This record gives sequence, structure tokens and C-alpha cells, in this order.
Amino acid sequence: MDIASTNFENVGPFTRVWEWLKALPVNLWAVAVEFANKMKKLGQDDPRRIVHSLKVGVAITLVSLFYYVRPLFDRFGENGIWAVLTVVLVFEFSVGATLGKGLNRMLATLSGGALAVGVDQVATLFDGTGQPIVLGILVFIIAATVTFMRFFPELKARYDYGLMIFILTFCLVSVSSYQDDEVLDMACQRLYTIIIGCFIAIIVCICVCPVWIGENLQNQIANNLEKLGNFLEGFGREYFRLSEEGHSTDDDKSFLHGYKSVLTSKDKEETMANLARWEFWHYRFGFRHPWNRYLKVGTLTRQCAYKIEDLNSYIKYFEIQATPTEFRREIQEQCIKICSESGKALKELASAIKKLRRSTSVINFHIENSKIAAEKLKSMLNMTSLWENANLREIIPTAAVGLILIDIVPCTEKIVETFQELASCARFERMDDRVSPSNDV
Amino acid sequence: MDIASTNFENVGPFTRVWEWLKALPVNLWAVAVEFANKMKKLGQDDPRRIVHSLKVGVAITLVSLFYYVRPLFDRFGENGIWAVLTVVLVFEFSVGATLGKGLNRMLATLSGGALAVGVDQVATLFDGTGQPIVLGILVFIIAATVTFMRFFPELKARYDYGLMIFILTFCLVSVSSYQDDEVLDMACQRLYTIIIGCFIAIIVCICVCPVWIGENLQNQIANNLEKLGNFLEGFGREYFRLSEEGHSTDDDKSFLHGYKSVLTSKDKEETMANLARWEFWHYRFGFRHPWNRYLKVGTLTRQCAYKIEDLNSYIKYFEIQATPTEFRREIQEQCIKICSESGKALKELASAIKKLRRSTSVINFHIENSKIAAEKLKSMLNMTSLWENANLREIIPTAAVGLILIDIVPCTEKIVETFQELASCARFERMDDRVSPSNDV
Repeated sequence: MDIASTNFENVGPFTRVWEWLKALPVNLWAVAVEFANKMKKLGQDDPRRIVHSLKVGVAITLVSLFYYVRPLFDRFGENGIWAVLTVVLVFEFSVGATLGKGLNRMLATLSGGALAVGVDQVATLFDGTGQPIVLGILVFIIAATVTFMRFFPELKARYDYGLMIFILTFCLVSVSSYQDDEVLDMACQRLYTIIIGCFIAIIVCICVCPVWIGENLQNQIANNLEKLGNFLEGFGREYFRLSEEGHSTDDDKSFLHGYKSVLTSKDKEETMANLARWEFWHYRFGFRHPWNRYLKVGTLTRQCAYKIEDLNSYIKYFEIQATPTEFRREIQEQCIKICSESGKALKELASAIKKLRRSTSVINFHIENSKIAAEKLKSMLNMTSLWENANLREIIPTAAVGLILIDIVPCTEKIVETFQELASCARFERMDDRVSPSNDV
Repeated sequence: MDIASTNFENVGPFTRVWEWLKALPVNLWAVAVEFANKMKKLGQDDPRRIVHSLKVGVAITLVSLFYYVRPLFDRFGENGIWAVLTVVLVFEFSVGATLGKGLNRMLATLSGGALAVGVDQVATLFDGTGQPIVLGILVFIIAATVTFMRFFPELKARYDYGLMIFILTFCLVSVSSYQDDEVLDMACQRLYTIIIGCFIAIIVCICVCPVWIGENLQNQIANNLEKLGNFLEGFGREYFRLSEEGHSTDDDKSFLHGYKSVLTSKDKEETMANLARWEFWHYRFGFRHPWNRYLKVGTLTRQCAYKIEDLNSYIKYFEIQATPTEFRREIQEQCIKICSESGKALKELASAIKKLRRSTSVINFHIENSKIAAEKLKSMLNMTSLWENANLREIIPTAAVGLILIDIVPCTEKIVETFQELASCARFERMDDRVSPSNDV
């Protein structure tokens, strides 16, 4: 394409158009092939996407029976359209999002419709010209007030859709009440069809391969911890132990970048937690699962990730110095220990979160080990004998890495503490008791 | 409340209910007062919210004329409801969001309706029972395919709403075509009212105190740079200079926390840039404004913020050591210089972005100064004489801070380079030329 475009510069506009037209079928084919490949990849990356698309198709086909089946059409008539509309608007990828939107929509339609019928009763007290003026003023006041309420952070997080539907229903019903005398009847018909639409969407979403956003949040938090654990283990292995024996040949340094996504995971986790609150009756989590504590673990994970970003910035000094200094040899044992023990603790924690278990003794064992190593490292850094023959220019980066590693230990400990709180609030299974022989009877 | 609830534990359920009922009016009043206070605070924090709510009210009142004005109702009838619905759904806080939703909705309604009319023609080729089956299959296929397309990241970013409306319109028109013979007429009527609704929303949004999301993005990027600049200046002032003269008494350390919001600004900035692309005709930005480059500046700003988070973690060492060491006294001049020059460069940059100006010479002056200081600091850290009498345990944190400061300089430089690219792409005004006397004639 580059060669073609440079050739274009020397020719007239007609030749250009002709060239473009000649190339069109080939280009279109290339675009189509690329599109198909992308679609295939999207499906392979997460097959639940294909299932979701089929589920939406099924739900819409189901709800269109309102039009195809004579008795249903005779009962609801044109109002059946609200059921179709509801399914399209309410059906989301996860159960939490679908439930949230469905419940919001049903409640908002009910309350908005009821208020509109009330307003209609007030407006009928006025005669001809007065009626639209009163209706207009009331619509203006209520629309403006509820729109302003959408700015409340607490309402925005969970009820934004409901507030919008409230305005919508209120305006539709009260505005059309001016031309339609059977406003109560119409509002009821719409409410029924919207409720049916919501139920169809919710039932299809839950019954056919459901995607629980609570599980996704849990996996996300666990995966983030695992990424940090991988980094720490890899960092210790690559930049302390192996730098002594020469760098590893296979160059598998994917762990160096894995943690980057943790740095910016805040908004995603908050959205997920908000949606997970709608999944009341999930068999694993149940009602009042402490989603906020997951966010707390997430926040601490990010704080640890910032320290790791920091460690990462010292790698360049390690890569320049091919042969480790005397000083590094002295402190490397404790550094490796902190890396591997903290890394293991984080990875154990990740697997405990995934399995909803409190395997505290293993985690605490690793944490205690890392604390001992940190204490040793601290006192080593205070020893003057260690520095005497050292090349100070090479010491600083290594010592700075040591300081960061010492900082990472309490950071990991805090994550574990928050996990303990989460585990006791959420009544995770006690793994440690189960494995002891006395309980195995 | 705490006292009351502990008293409850010793009394029967009836007494509890009675106590609760007695307290109800007081509690309700307290809730109402709190709600009103919160509303007031929301309005004071950003008065544009109040204006937005009034704008929504005006747009809805305008569009309800479809029902109140007889000739309009005679022309569009019940289809006028789609105009009301469109205004409620399309009207957003910023011009970009409203335009994006409006254009998406109009295009999607047009294309979805056209496809549905085509499908209807195909279905009429079949007789009685065949028709709903053919319609059902086609609706299933198209709904599932388009739902899957919503997973494409490129489409999701800008056309997600359009794809949903496409499914919606297609399903509504093709499903109702089975019971309604004048499907083409109905589709056209709806299209007209939706277009009118979109235009009312867009015009009110643009003409009455518009909120341009492009300006918001620009301010957000500039404010983030300013926060980092404030931190650097404050850090240099508090922890190098003043630690010599004792800590400052006024304790204004707000700069220590201001930068925290920068760490997690990624998603917000990306959403803003996606919406800003819809604001084609903004008087300051115009068509094809390079929004992507703002995101690039944002990414580099975040990278700088991670380093600052890192600096922040060393503050504890500085606070423990009330009297600075000999070593710190030696390097502090260059450290302060890096802090203040980088900080000034970032703040100049922020004001240049806000004013859409390329005031490069001032920024470059500060950058050059900070580079010189960084070079000096580097060679100081290499000097062995500096270390001879030092207490090494106290040296490490100070030296680590020095290393981070040296790292911040190229980071700032990169931000400035990206800004230069942005400024030349976006054709910012050349500030430097304007102040030179030769051009002032």
C-alpha cells in the first residue's frame, strides 16, 4: 500500500480513483478476512462471548412470541413492543448487570408510572389550556430534579439506570396522558410487558451458562495477587541468583510486564463490585457478601504494585553490572528469601481466594519467613563492616532494592490481614482444620 | 443511636417497634436535611450540574410539544413518544457524549430500520406459518451476530450504543411487521421523530452553557501535571531545605496527597478522549484534534506519578532523621534544583496545555537546568570522597531519593517531547514568537 500511495502523487485524480476502484475488491476481501480473524480470536479468547450472543438471540426470539402468538398479541397488542425493547436493553453479559438493570427497570417503571398517573389526576382538575401548562411545569420540575439526583455518587453507582428509566416512564406516561384517556390502563399494560421482558432476560441470563460478575471480581483480585507473586519470584531468581551464574538463556521475562495491568485496575474492580452486589442468591457467595473487602484487598494490591514498579526501575542497574559486587553477594541470600517467601505468600493467597478457603497457616509461615529475612537484611544494611571495601557507586542501587524489599514485607502482611478479615466476614471454609487428622474422621 | 441500639437488646420486639416508630419522624427529618445538604454541596462543587438538570428539563418540555400541540400530534400521533424517549436517553452531561449518542442513535435507527424492512420483504414470500419462523430465524441470527460485534474493542469504544440501538430497531420493526402491514410507513415515522428528538437534545446541549468534554480532558491532563509539579516543589522545599532549618510550622502538606488521583486516572482519560472525538466542531479544537496524543501525555504523567509515589515512601526516613546528615547537606543543592526545576517545567507545561500555547523556551530552560543538576548529582554520587566520613545507614535513603530524582528528569523530558508533538499536531499558538519584539509590530 505504501508503494501504491507514493505512485499516486505523480498521477491525475481520475487515475487515482480508477486505481482505488481496481483495488477495491481486493481491499474489501482483505478487510473481510481480517474482520473474520478478529471475530475468531475474540471468540477463542473468551468463549463465553459466543454463548452470550446466542443467549441474547434466544431471549429476543422468545420475547417476539408476543407478536407471533395470536392470543398473546390479542391480550397485549402493540404494548408487546415494550417487552422486546426491555430484553434488548436489559440483557447484559453478567448476571449482576442483568439483574441490576432488570430490577432497576421494573421498580423505576412502577414508581415513575404511578407518579405520572397521580400527576395526570392533578392536571385533570384544570381545564383546556391550563392542563398542558400544568403538565409541562410538573414534567419540567420532576425531570430536572431527578436528573440532578443522578449526580449523587451513591445513587449513580447502583441506581443510575433506574433514575433514567424513572424520568423516561414518568415523561412518557404523563405526556401521553394528555391525548389518551385510558392512561392507567396503558401504564399497567406497559408495566406488565416490561416485567415480563425483564423476567425473560433474567431467566435466560441465569439459566443458560451464567456469567457471575462476583466470580469474575474474585478471579481478578486473585490473578492480580498472582501476578505480583510471579514478579517477586522471578525478580529474585533473575537478578540475584542467576546473575551470579550468568543470565538465563531462555529469556522468559514475561513476569516483568504481567503486573503492569494491576496498576490501573481500580475502576474496573469498583464497577465489578457494584454489579456483584446485585447477585443476591449466588450459591457460593449468598446475600451480603462483603464485596467492599475485596476492593480493600485490591487497593492494597495496587499499593504493592507501585513498589514493584519501583523495583522494576532498578533492573537497569542490575543489567549493566554483569558480575555482582561483593556487597550484593552478601545481602543476596536475604533478598532472595524475601522475594521468594513474599511471592509464595501472595500466590498462596491468590489460590485461597479462588477456592474460598482460609489456608492461613501456610500463608503465615511464608509471611513469618519473609519477616525474619527482612529483619536480617535490615541489620545487615546497618552493619558498617559490610561497606568497608565496597564500591559505593555500585552499592546504592542494590541497597535501594533492599530497602524496597524490606518495605514490601509489611505491605504483603497488610494484604494478608485484610484477606483474613474478608475470609471471616465471608465465612470462607477453614482449610487448616480440615487437613488436621482429628477432623478427618 | 449507639446507646439506643444497646438498650434494645434487653427489651421485647413490640417495645423495639414502638421505639423505632417514635424515632421515625426525627429520623426522617434528619435524612431529609442530610439529603438537602448533600444536594447543595453537589451543586456548589460544580454548578454545571444544576445547569445540566435545567437543560434536561427544558429539552423534555420542548419535545412534549409533540403531544400538546394539536397539528404536531395529528401529524405524528403516538409515534411522538419516540421523540420524548430519545431526548431522555440521548441527553448527556457533555456535548461529546450527547453528540455521540445522538449520531449513533440516528444512524443505527436508519440502518436497523432499513434492514428490518428488507427482512420483512423476504418474509412476505412465505405463507402463514412459514412467515413467523423465517422472521424468528433472521431475528435470532442478526441479534446474535451484532451482540457479538459489541465485544470488538474498537466498536465498543465509540459505537456500543449504536450497535444496541441497531438490534433494538431491527427487532422492533421486523417483529411488529408481522402484525402491521404498513411497516415502512411506521419505520419512517419513528425515524423522523427520533431524528427530531436527537436534534432537540443536541441543540439544547450545545446552545445552553455547553460542557465540552474535550476541554475537560485537557484540564484533567493539565491539572495532573500541575499536581506532580506541586509535589516535586513541595518535596524539595520540605525535605531538603527546611529540614535544615527545622520543619515548617504551618504543616501545609496537601501536596503530599494531591498526586494520588493521578495514579488511577487511566480509564477516566480514555473515556473522555473517546467522547471528545465526537465534538467535531468545537471552536478551539476543530476537526481531527489529536486526542490520542493527550492520552500519551497522560500515560507518561502516570509513569512519572509512580516514581513520585516511590519518593513519597522515603519521606518516613527523612522524618525520622530530624537533623540532616553531612551527606544530605552535600547533595541537597542539586536535589532541590532538580525538584524545583522539574516541578516548574511541569507546571509551565500544564499552563501551556490549558492555554493551547507552545511556550517551549521557558519549559526547555527549566528542563535544561534540571538536566544539568541531574548530571552534577550523578557525578557527586560517584565521588568517593563524599562517602568517607558518612554514616552509611543514613546514606542509603538519601542516595535512593537522589537516584529517583535523577530518573524523574528524563521522565519529565519525555512528557515535554510528547507535548511538543501534540502542540505541533494540534497547531497550538506559538507563544515564544509572540513575545519577541520583532513580531509585536
